[in-house]
Amino acid sequence: MALIVQKYGGTSVGTVERIQSVADRVLKSVQRGDSVVVVVSAMSGETNRLIEMARSIQSEPAPRELDMLVATGEQVTIALLSMALQQRGQDARSYTGAQVPVLTDSEHTKARIKSINTETIKSDLAAGRVVVVAGFQGVDKHGQITTLGRGGSDTSAVALAAALKADECQIYTDVDGVYTTDPRVVPKARRLDRITFEEMLEMASLGSKVLQIRSVEFAGKYNVPLRVMSSFEDGPGTLITLEDENVEEPVISGIAFHKDEAQLTVKGVPDSPGIAYQLLGPIGDANIEVDMILQNVGADDGADFTFTVHRADFDNALKLLRETAEKLGAREVSGNHNIVKISLVGVGMRSHAGVASKMFRVLSDEKINIRMIATSEIKISVVIDDKYLELAVRALHDAFELDTPEVSLN
Amino acid sequence: MALIVQKYGGTSVGTVERIQSVADRVLKSVQRGDSVVVVVSAMSGETNRLIEMARSIQSEPAPRELDMLVATGEQVTIALLSMALQQRGQDARSYTGAQVPVLTDSEHTKARIKSINTETIKSDLAAGRVVVVAGFQGVDKHGQITTLGRGGSDTSAVALAAALKADECQIYTDVDGVYTTDPRVVPKARRLDRITFEEMLEMASLGSKVLQIRSVEFAGKYNVPLRVMSSFEDGPGTLITLEDENVEEPVISGIAFHKDEAQLTVKGVPDSPGIAYQLLGPIGDANIEVDMILQNVGADDGADFTFTVHRADFDNALKLLRETAEKLGAREVSGNHNIVKISLVGVGMRSHAGVASKMFRVLSDEKINIRMIATSEIKISVVIDDKYLELAVRALHDAFELDTPEVSLN
Repeated sequence: MALIVQKYGGTSVGTVERIQSVADRVLKSVQRGDSVVVVVSAMSGETNRLIEMARSIQSEPAPRELDMLVATGEQVTIALLSMALQQRGQDARSYTGAQVPVLTDSEHTKARIKSINTETIKSDLAAGRVVVVAGFQGVDKHGQITTLGRGGSDTSAVALAAALKADECQIYTDVDGVYTTDPRVVPKARRLDRITFEEMLEMASLGSKVLQIRSVEFAGKYNVPLRVMSSFEDGPGTLITLEDENVEEPVISGIAFHKDEAQLTVKGVPDSPGIAYQLLGPIGDANIEVDMILQNVGADDGADFTFTVHRADFDNALKLLRETAEKLGAREVSGNHNIVKISLVGVGMRSHAGVASKMFRVLSDEKINIRMIATSEIKISVVIDDKYLELAVRALHDAFELDTPEVSLN
Repeated sequence: MALIVQKYGGTSVGTVERIQSVADRVLKSVQRGDSVVVVVSAMSGETNRLIEMARSIQSEPAPRELDMLVATGEQVTIALLSMALQQRGQDARSYTGAQVPVLTDSEHTKARIKSINTETIKSDLAAGRVVVVAGFQGVDKHGQITTLGRGGSDTSAVALAAALKADECQIYTDVDGVYTTDPRVVPKARRLDRITFEEMLEMASLGSKVLQIRSVEFAGKYNVPLRVMSSFEDGPGTLITLEDENVEEPVISGIAFHKDEAQLTVKGVPDSPGIAYQLLGPIGDANIEVDMILQNVGADDGADFTFTVHRADFDNALKLLRETAEKLGAREVSGNHNIVKISLVGVGMRSHAGVASKMFRVLSDEKINIRMIATSEIKISVVIDDKYLELAVRALHDAFELDTPEVSLN
């Protein structure tokens, strides 16, 4: 008998009919002998409906009142799902975040979980009940209702699984697992049976929006086995676990890519301490998120500095950068907003040399010019012109044989 | 500076625009220098929408889960009203019943308030905030969300006013006060400036559905001055208070009536102990509410027994009564479902003889036959054929000069 935490997002509980399907799916687990804690989001569209009402009253509602408002969304779902389970003869009990309690800090609309008291849940499970918990929400030490921010239901589920020492945390979504790359770009893309937390983090932050990043970090930190599954069809999904040293890891697990990038370059800036801060300070102050940052020593007349931002922020960032560059006496500012970033991700590349050179060779064979390169322990990212995106991803997917379960570097 | 509790029902907060109007009205009180606690219901239609979703899942949802579900209705309203106040520059803070906390027993969907902790509210008021509380809901000692049943927001408001020792509890409705009788029947019906709790109770239970009965009982018990006001237009409303012995009370405060009554009579039942229980037991078991009950010693062959029920229950009640009557060997069972009950209400009738005889004379002058009579200390009720309703109420309204503020018996 396993203890399973299942999380169903807004789409999976979007209508009364879908809530009925979720009840059926939960019941299957119970009938297999599992103890089940279910974490649910608000019915899809509900949170937006509430926020629209709020914004029609006040453009910037107080975060405390916004949390009070949107927390009702999940509360509706937990009650309805409990009813659906009871209708099927399965004893069930719903809890708001405050009732569990899921204790958070007091940062309304983006609170972080501090601790979870599992006493009530455990005694319900022991009594044979399914426990249905409102995701996305908690309570601070003053009894104020807080929310974890968008997507926070994943975090709720993982945190509950960690606190309960659950055997598995299953995240039900509208996809049936994590793929080697986007199947819309590469039809041969393959669902992965397993992926490590680190790989998943790199995949997620690069645009594979299956899971909220914070929930993966959390699962990794507390070693909660996480499984991404479809709430609409049966299947094993993708298990996200710690790196298992006894298993031969594939070199590359997947190819992530990020469209809508833009690159900015300053040439000939004085190569002195603090220069990065001086260049990026105004960008950060304008709430523009910076992704890759590269600095190389240039010619005699100073360093070259390149970074990427979201394409929507390009014009604004370029204007700010021009102002700063002028002050610093830089030689030249340039930009390019027709680029994409492609990353190979895999814990296996730690122990295998040659991944980078193979990647560069594949792109060279396709006559694709590389504009930037950045590497981490388990990731190599290149920036190329956006018109080559599909060509590059398909060539790399083939070259690293990602469509076949067994992968080798040779 | 007065401490005022204001309660706005579902219609008064039915749209975002109406919530804005409520905020304006609250602000007026604040600007007069009052400290204000606002109690609100769910936006009209919301509770029904939630209950319909629940019933589409389960015909008889567990009361605990039903409370979990419908409690979200008021939670939405308190958040939105707080935002509307803050938008107007007025600091405000919302609280669910569980947050106050409003401690209740554990009778889900019909809980009773046991105590209210006013500490948080008082410190918010002291800080110059308007406090917005979710009506209709509370929390039991185990932390479970409870509701007080339909109309319970009135009770929440009165209980809060009592706990806070508020100077006045204002109930905002879609009428501008309590009238001497239904203005749709008697166009000359007059708004009362004052009425006693006892009179209000008799008026309310007789069909003047301005206030929930329990809230009036509560207000009377804790001597909370209650004022019924319109949320759509300005005006003093009607103040409901303890009987003031220094004021000359009018003999009659109002005329209440109850349509849709039906009368059932058994003649010739054995005049023995327990007969009322034997006759009414099956009726009560069938969840049929009995209103008036009369028993008179009849002719030689036993007692006559008459009672009234709601017209919708007439057929069912008649069938049950026939079965019982046969067992008891009663002589005759008859019924009439075209009757109404009309009641004169007034604490003044305690000290004035002759109200009853005047009432009977007025009806007799109009050739209206009286079928039943029942009296209490501050009420005389008669049952008559329903076709005479308007005639009787108008004649009595004239005879007791209810259209003029000063009333005397002579």
